[in-house]
Amino acid sequence: MLAVCGGVGGAKLAFGLQEEVGAALTVMVNTGDDFTHLGLAISPDIDTVLYTLGGLADPVRGWGRAGETWQFMTALRQLGGEDWFQLGDLDLAMHVERTRRLAGGERLSAVTADTARRLALAARVLPMSDEPVRTTVETSQGRLAFQHYFVRERCMPSVLGLRFEGAERARILPELADLLADDALCAVIICPSNPYLSIDPILALPGMREALARCAAPVVAVSPLIGGQAVKGPTAKIMGELGLAAGSAAIARHYAGLVDGLVVDTADAADADRVLAFGLSCMVAPTLMKGPQERVALARQCLAFAHELDAKRRAERPEETQPWSRSWTEQDSGPSCP
Amino acid sequence: MLAVCGGVGGAKLAFGLQEEVGAALTVMVNTGDDFTHLGLAISPDIDTVLYTLGGLADPVRGWGRAGETWQFMTALRQLGGEDWFQLGDLDLAMHVERTRRLAGGERLSAVTADTARRLALAARVLPMSDEPVRTTVETSQGRLAFQHYFVRERCMPSVLGLRFEGAERARILPELADLLADDALCAVIICPSNPYLSIDPILALPGMREALARCAAPVVAVSPLIGGQAVKGPTAKIMGELGLAAGSAAIARHYAGLVDGLVVDTADAADADRVLAFGLSCMVAPTLMKGPQERVALARQCLAFAHELDAKRRAERPEETQPWSRSWTEQDSGPSCP
Repeated sequence: MLAVCGGVGGAKLAFGLQEEVGAALTVMVNTGDDFTHLGLAISPDIDTVLYTLGGLADPVRGWGRAGETWQFMTALRQLGGEDWFQLGDLDLAMHVERTRRLAGGERLSAVTADTARRLALAARVLPMSDEPVRTTVETSQGRLAFQHYFVRERCMPSVLGLRFEGAERARILPELADLLADDALCAVIICPSNPYLSIDPILALPGMREALARCAAPVVAVSPLIGGQAVKGPTAKIMGELGLAAGSAAIARHYAGLVDGLVVDTADAADADRVLAFGLSCMVAPTLMKGPQERVALARQCLAFAHELDAKRRAERPEETQPWSRSWTEQDSGPSCP
Repeated sequence: MLAVCGGVGGAKLAFGLQEEVGAALTVMVNTGDDFTHLGLAISPDIDTVLYTLGGLADPVRGWGRAGETWQFMTALRQLGGEDWFQLGDLDLAMHVERTRRLAGGERLSAVTADTARRLALAARVLPMSDEPVRTTVETSQGRLAFQHYFVRERCMPSVLGLRFEGAERARILPELADLLADDALCAVIICPSNPYLSIDPILALPGMREALARCAAPVVAVSPLIGGQAVKGPTAKIMGELGLAAGSAAIARHYAGLVDGLVVDTADAADADRVLAFGLSCMVAPTLMKGPQERVALARQCLAFAHELDAKRRAERPEETQPWSRSWTEQDSGPSCP
């Protein structure tokens, strides 16, 4: 199965999915946040996914590695270096090694897959593309590179629009295009990442919307909002700035035509009818993932929902051969997507 | 005054000289050990001099920074990165920031001078050249880049010869060429660094030997050997492999025609006559620098020796105008070279 993912919130669900389906999981990660800083190639979402799925993520701070130290930053400040982007001593190894390998001609996807293997991840983690896509934010203070907006300016400037530079020339990673076209694919889960900042760069790749619409598996998205607010990050703020009411309806409208079902939080159960109005199925479930148990629980709900959508589609169109549905297996714990 | 310097041993005397003459000290540092590792521009001798003169050097390990930690290396190993060259978390800031600035078109000398300023050094620290010179070692195991020989292979292979790649195309740093040609220069001290590995790359620069021979100031070298052994490092081993008897005579022969006087350790007092036989003056002094006091004491001895050589030359050639000698001032503590 395929998880589609940005950073922190999305990675938590990807962790739960990995617990459930192990090596059957492939995670397609946003690279729009990637940037070069201090000469280092930094891929924040890839690293968050690798650290989270590898059990290395800091559980309190919400980003970076557990047990991180900041000696490098202390010394960098002493030398007058740019210090607005925090690079931990452990985390630095990822950036230095990736920069070295990319400079040596390796593809980002190969480096990422190899790193996942070295960190003993069960899942396969891949960037959405090997070609660079760079999210830029049109703001009240002018155009800002994503990390300048997100970290340096702490999301303070008002967002007027988003651009995904290079997306029109980037190709969906061939391995991911193949997976999306594979009849055996049993589910696609769009994780509760920011739809505008983290998922849209992925959807901006030529052919990605078509590939999702055409794919044999049911596509389920999880709303990143709880009671109209983001658990973390600027989703609600950005929605307001873009003239959207921060709620399940706007999320449903955003994903309409692209996904089969939307999972909304129990706090937003009253929104279910509005989701249905956009032609999407709706599941209500607790989406706040405070610990590993909640991650696994939400992953199960998402898989059950995908299974249900699959069954529904089969019932509606029994004449169609749907070989992908054979990959579902019934277990004691519910449907499983190996 | 000018100190000529490689890494650890040399930097200790440079520290003592800085204590004595402060901002009047310029340190010319070997860059033959420089290399690119993990994509980072590393200048081991420059860093040792900066850390030592800045009071940041580890007093026990003999290289790198005090209070250093190794989280980066731990994480790098986890990712399968090359780990034969130890890069501390604090130290990394130096390499990342230098790499960034060089890539941006700054000269190594400008980056080094600026770093010295930021670390609040009194002395001016400059690389011997802005053009790359790379020491390679012809060994029993073939040709090795310097750090591969020195660190990775722990100086184990027998040395058959040394090459300073690029030296013939490199220019003495203009600021240093100017200083060497300055009549007001009052002393040149070649610090007790390895003559073959650390000083010879400097002497290999076109015009350097001539500039030293022509310069108005007396030139004093300090032997790195004590009782025929190096305090640290492979000097004696390399001398043996090059067919030289590890002792003051070989050092004197190496520097003959280039320096006016050689300082040998009290343990080698019996060698004084052999030094004189090469036409050099000789001073016997304790050269082991266990702490700051010994560094300053040796610096004073070297300055007194230079002053003595200056007076001797004036007495021998009274007809010559030697404006540089005017810069010596007599203080309670002895002669000083501002």
